[in-house]
Amino acid sequence: MTAHDALSALLGDRFTTAQAHRAAHAQSETHVTGGLPDAVAYPETTAEVADLMRICAAHRLPVIGWGAGTSLEGHALALHGGVTVDFTRMDRVLDIRAEDMLVRVQPGITREALNRDLRATGLFFPVDPGANASLGGMAATRASGTTAVRYGTMRDAVLGLEVVLADGTVIRTGSAAPKSAAGYDLTALFVGSEGTLGLITELTLRLHGQPEAVSAAVCGFATMAQTVDCVIETIQSGLPMARIEFLDPAAVAACNAYSGQTLAETPLLLVEFHGTPASVAEQAARFGEIAQSHGSTGFRWAEQPEDRSALWKMRHAAYPACLAARPGATAIVTDVCVPISQLAQAVEETRADIAASGIPGPILGHVGDGNFHAILLIDPHSPEDRATAKALAARMATRALRLGGTVTGEHGIGIGKLGYMAQEHGAAWPVMGALKTALDPLNLLNPGKLVPPHDA
Amino acid sequence: MTAHDALSALLGDRFTTAQAHRAAHAQSETHVTGGLPDAVAYPETTAEVADLMRICAAHRLPVIGWGAGTSLEGHALALHGGVTVDFTRMDRVLDIRAEDMLVRVQPGITREALNRDLRATGLFFPVDPGANASLGGMAATRASGTTAVRYGTMRDAVLGLEVVLADGTVIRTGSAAPKSAAGYDLTALFVGSEGTLGLITELTLRLHGQPEAVSAAVCGFATMAQTVDCVIETIQSGLPMARIEFLDPAAVAACNAYSGQTLAETPLLLVEFHGTPASVAEQAARFGEIAQSHGSTGFRWAEQPEDRSALWKMRHAAYPACLAARPGATAIVTDVCVPISQLAQAVEETRADIAASGIPGPILGHVGDGNFHAILLIDPHSPEDRATAKALAARMATRALRLGGTVTGEHGIGIGKLGYMAQEHGAAWPVMGALKTALDPLNLLNPGKLVPPHDA
Repeated sequence: MTAHDALSALLGDRFTTAQAHRAAHAQSETHVTGGLPDAVAYPETTAEVADLMRICAAHRLPVIGWGAGTSLEGHALALHGGVTVDFTRMDRVLDIRAEDMLVRVQPGITREALNRDLRATGLFFPVDPGANASLGGMAATRASGTTAVRYGTMRDAVLGLEVVLADGTVIRTGSAAPKSAAGYDLTALFVGSEGTLGLITELTLRLHGQPEAVSAAVCGFATMAQTVDCVIETIQSGLPMARIEFLDPAAVAACNAYSGQTLAETPLLLVEFHGTPASVAEQAARFGEIAQSHGSTGFRWAEQPEDRSALWKMRHAAYPACLAARPGATAIVTDVCVPISQLAQAVEETRADIAASGIPGPILGHVGDGNFHAILLIDPHSPEDRATAKALAARMATRALRLGGTVTGEHGIGIGKLGYMAQEHGAAWPVMGALKTALDPLNLLNPGKLVPPHDA
Repeated sequence: MTAHDALSALLGDRFTTAQAHRAAHAQSETHVTGGLPDAVAYPETTAEVADLMRICAAHRLPVIGWGAGTSLEGHALALHGGVTVDFTRMDRVLDIRAEDMLVRVQPGITREALNRDLRATGLFFPVDPGANASLGGMAATRASGTTAVRYGTMRDAVLGLEVVLADGTVIRTGSAAPKSAAGYDLTALFVGSEGTLGLITELTLRLHGQPEAVSAAVCGFATMAQTVDCVIETIQSGLPMARIEFLDPAAVAACNAYSGQTLAETPLLLVEFHGTPASVAEQAARFGEIAQSHGSTGFRWAEQPEDRSALWKMRHAAYPACLAARPGATAIVTDVCVPISQLAQAVEETRADIAASGIPGPILGHVGDGNFHAILLIDPHSPEDRATAKALAARMATRALRLGGTVTGEHGIGIGKLGYMAQEHGAAWPVMGALKTALDPLNLLNPGKLVPPHDA
């Protein structure tokens, strides 16, 4: 029996080689494109995923997991053909355990759908990468976002997984207990493995109580150094910020134009606090004092839900706002992360580099984590623009490494960053390759990604 | 050249086969004993560790890491001879980065020494397993303790490692950036690997600000169910407890006798809050309300440092207090962790089981994590006692698994828990074996531990 026949027998019309399905899974939200799968599968159960994997292993067919397709680095593109496994039909909440503050979900559920289902419980899932990504994809790429400074990244949010391995074996990692010292941390190994070690078919996620009170503020600074010093002192003082976001003057200008705000076009911080009414008020007051001692200007509280909502709507719309700042442009979105002590230098050098390039590149980021992005706006028809932006992005990545950081804080490696793995990890990169070979000796799972090339 | 000659040439008199040194490294703090190394080495640099590893690999000699020797499960015992690598001489703080709230240390430093060195910085290292363990050992065993409910375990505390692999290669995992999405989480893989994948020669650790204010309280409950319901509601309400410890009536009685306290001998909670004076006061008041709504009795605040100190001194002395409750006894200390919703049932079943056994077994634990210990007090000369206690411990472990938990919350697997790995992890245990084989194909690193036996 051919692989095609076996997979059709397994999945019926949920296995397809139709061009429209293949093409829909050869795209990404960014400039990263390419890689047409031979077929697309839409399993509904773990057993189907395991059977599919066994069939593909027998026929040496690559297998690529697909969540919501919101990756910015082309993680889910089928570089060597094979079968793309689309988890859209595995999108259920399996079990809400409010007493344990846990939820078990299938990988295809998106974070917005999950939080809708959780609303009545008083709990929520805090990791917020902006895009309405699938939880399976967020785990596979170790996603994070604006709330990581308080609630952590997917590394912290995932307590356990069910995974289908390269030979079709189904394993469970972790347990429902809050912690364990029983053996290798396989959960952490699969989180961030970008589909190269197994297919995630179920996740157990930590939840948090919906905050009783929320307060937010915005303030400006004359210099990047003052901005970062304010952030550092806030962190050191132990203030539990729920978010602390940075926009550079170009990003503020773009947001003003797009969202009808009138914020001063200086380095800007947006902060948010979660807690009881009294603790939120105290945190906000303390932050105000710290910000003032670092020369903050234009301090504005947003205590009313509608003011807060307007601020965060503006922040969440920063990407389209930046795009609108150069009509007709497309964007190359960078993503580096450095130790906070190096953040001012990293941002200032990046701003100067962008200014000298002639390409617009607003900067924004999650400064509590040392993580920031430049939105490099290029003319899609200009090879010069593209080359200039790629050179800027490359210098950002190597600058982050020089300052003791990482080439990706949250977007992952995918296709775009594979070239930096050797430089970032040195002798540890081949170790990742050895682990990959141990778990996927035939190199079937998302081949061409994350680990050293097989023929190297 | 023999291995002995090569290692002597490398380390001089810091490599020894003297019986006293070998015997000192064949002991543990508990009933777990056995395994005499052929020699003991005291390296002073990473380069020496790498050279030692290369020599041992060439001669097929097992290599076992040794920190402070405080493991409760015999992790560092040399089951197959070889060289025990004692990290006592690699105990320096290498770099305190206060702005980044990080410290780089060598593996032999103990947590008390580290916190002494940090005192002037306003920062501290929060993971507190009770014993004055080495940081290398704490990372290798994924240790935690009373503060994990607030500050996390070693999984959260370790940001990066330097590791000597089985062939002598030196790698670095992680970076100084607060987060990264660049590849497999090797840091998390080595944390908790119990010396079976590499020798940790350096750690980068996250620090926290010393709390401005601390408040503590103690209160009793009529039943275990009320106690746990109080803990669950406190967690769900988002109150950031720094510690929340449980003692059963037998443990309270032992502590009263040993530390001269007069606490009511009921299920007892000890809590501690860290924060600003105002937030600590608010948290304490809220906890008081929650505890009262669950029928708490004997509520007592300890706002003065000396009262707090007396309470926690009592808690930290719980182990000798329990030992003193049965003169001449030795202890088998168990360590299970369950989902919090199952905690009341797990503790009640355990108490009934211990009561029926005739062996004294006070229970205490870190209830915020679902983690608890029974201190089974046995006559060291009674094989019956030992057999009864081991059977009790075995039932505790399988009970934890039945309730969705783990056989070890924080003490690790070592020798004592190896027999439960298959039951806890199922098909995931051989995956751990495959990873071990990939990184240590000659099975030289702490052989006989953690993964399925090579000859199985």
